Amino acid sequence: MTKPAVRRRVTVVEDGRARVREDRLTGEEPLEIRVNGRSLAVTMRTPGHDVELALGFLVSEGVITRRDQIRTARYCAGTTDEGLNTYNVLDVQVGHDAHVDHLALERHGYTSSSCGVCGKTSIEAVTTRSAFDVSADPLRLDADLLTRLPDRMREVQAVFSQTGGLHAAGLFDGRTGEPLVVREDVGRHNAVDKVVGWALEHEKLPLAGCVLLVSGRAGFELVQKASMAGVPVLAAISAPSSLAADLGAEAGLTVVGFLRGPSMVIYSRPDRVEERP
Amino acid sequence: MTKPAVRRRVTVVEDGRARVREDRLTGEEPLEIRVNGRSLAVTMRTPGHDVELALGFLVSEGVITRRDQIRTARYCAGTTDEGLNTYNVLDVQVGHDAHVDHLALERHGYTSSSCGVCGKTSIEAVTTRSAFDVSADPLRLDADLLTRLPDRMREVQAVFSQTGGLHAAGLFDGRTGEPLVVREDVGRHNAVDKVVGWALEHEKLPLAGCVLLVSGRAGFELVQKASMAGVPVLAAISAPSSLAADLGAEAGLTVVGFLRGPSMVIYSRPDRVEERP
Repeated sequence: MTKPAVRRRVTVVEDGRARVREDRLTGEEPLEIRVNGRSLAVTMRTPGHDVELALGFLVSEGVITRRDQIRTARYCAGTTDEGLNTYNVLDVQVGHDAHVDHLALERHGYTSSSCGVCGKTSIEAVTTRSAFDVSADPLRLDADLLTRLPDRMREVQAVFSQTGGLHAAGLFDGRTGEPLVVREDVGRHNAVDKVVGWALEHEKLPLAGCVLLVSGRAGFELVQKASMAGVPVLAAISAPSSLAADLGAEAGLTVVGFLRGPSMVIYSRPDRVEERP
Repeated sequence: MTKPAVRRRVTVVEDGRARVREDRLTGEEPLEIRVNGRSLAVTMRTPGHDVELALGFLVSEGVITRRDQIRTARYCAGTTDEGLNTYNVLDVQVGHDAHVDHLALERHGYTSSSCGVCGKTSIEAVTTRSAFDVSADPLRLDADLLTRLPDRMREVQAVFSQTGGLHAAGLFDGRTGEPLVVREDVGRHNAVDKVVGWALEHEKLPLAGCVLLVSGRAGFELVQKASMAGVPVLAAISAPSSLAADLGAEAGLTVVGFLRGPSMVIYSRPDRVEERP
């Protein structure tokens, strides 16, 4: 099993001069997620918190919403030529009330979006599927509190400073700004799934009153994951896409972008963010 | 059809004070890629250069390597409730000598990687599949030329300055540093596929003597795409993953990261980058 960070010899070039040194790189390995023994998806991820990743993915896909729907989650199959477990295949056994039938639609990994290609909009597909309605979440956020979250997330991040190659996702209490959990991954979506999987394991779904912060941009799928987990506010350090903003508006989810220094841009439900008194 | 950039009303908060203004967001829509009428993948992409995206994706997946293997590529199916074409489904008809059988393996979108989950390494899966061997490419690059490419790519980028939400991929002549093509997308992988699709359409595969530059990080899949297109040098503004560096070493492909200002870090085949005389 690859570690979250891996040592390699690299060549550094500065001002046209080369020298060799040791460096730490972000670990990356494929993870196959199975449900009741059936292969569902393969994602390239940074090893660590794999069970959270698999559970969060199943929440995002509408299969489960509660911890008691999980029977077991364990590494299976997958051995190297030497007979060692690769720890790259994880099977989740779910109970009868899980919505495994949702998976009939999931041929391509993006299927909840793919409805958008044939008439029904991507947004309709998500809003009709989420078990949680975030539009009525009464959370009101202090704008200044929101601007402090990126620094708080960086304080918690463990690996980033070593490799510079990880995305982070953090969950915060919307009233106090306290971090509940921060997860990192080579893939932004995986980092969010790990956070959501953590929340499922701690029986915190829906994530009412919380803010989900992501280190980079916010595309459609991140807003989708926030909606499926019942988070009322998604904030990103960089830009959202048009479809992300549209889904935020439709689902009643506050989407914040360009959260940098003392400023931010709010793309949907700005009423949740309060000006300085 | 959504445009590459879309106008929206947003709320800007600065120093605790809110005001409403118009803003431009990156367009994002799903695209379903079909081969000979069979659905293969759905990707969330920024509309524009869709045929390049589909063709580049097929090169990355090992289905085609030459323009004459394409019979037609056109929008099909996909109509809204009002009967309008969504321009979100694209069917590529390929000839008999295309490796459509490769697609038997492609259940999850990541299947060339997924071999890594069950014993055969992800790297073996790629190196045995690429039609091109980049390890023998005789390209030698001036380090100073390489450091000038990010600025040259930014000069060519059209949409980025408007929305701040797009990844870019650019192809450069490795001897002169001249840009051959630059493409942008909400997804880094899509931007690279658009560049590779452009190269296929212009009968430039394999991309011997070229440098592929990407705006963000370089994961395994980007090195895989470079390898499948026969590019000897992949450079990224930010960090590569461990598996990206490993694949670069195995395939004989030069992987450069943290290409910023006068410096860079070389993770594989540093012999292609020459120090200042």
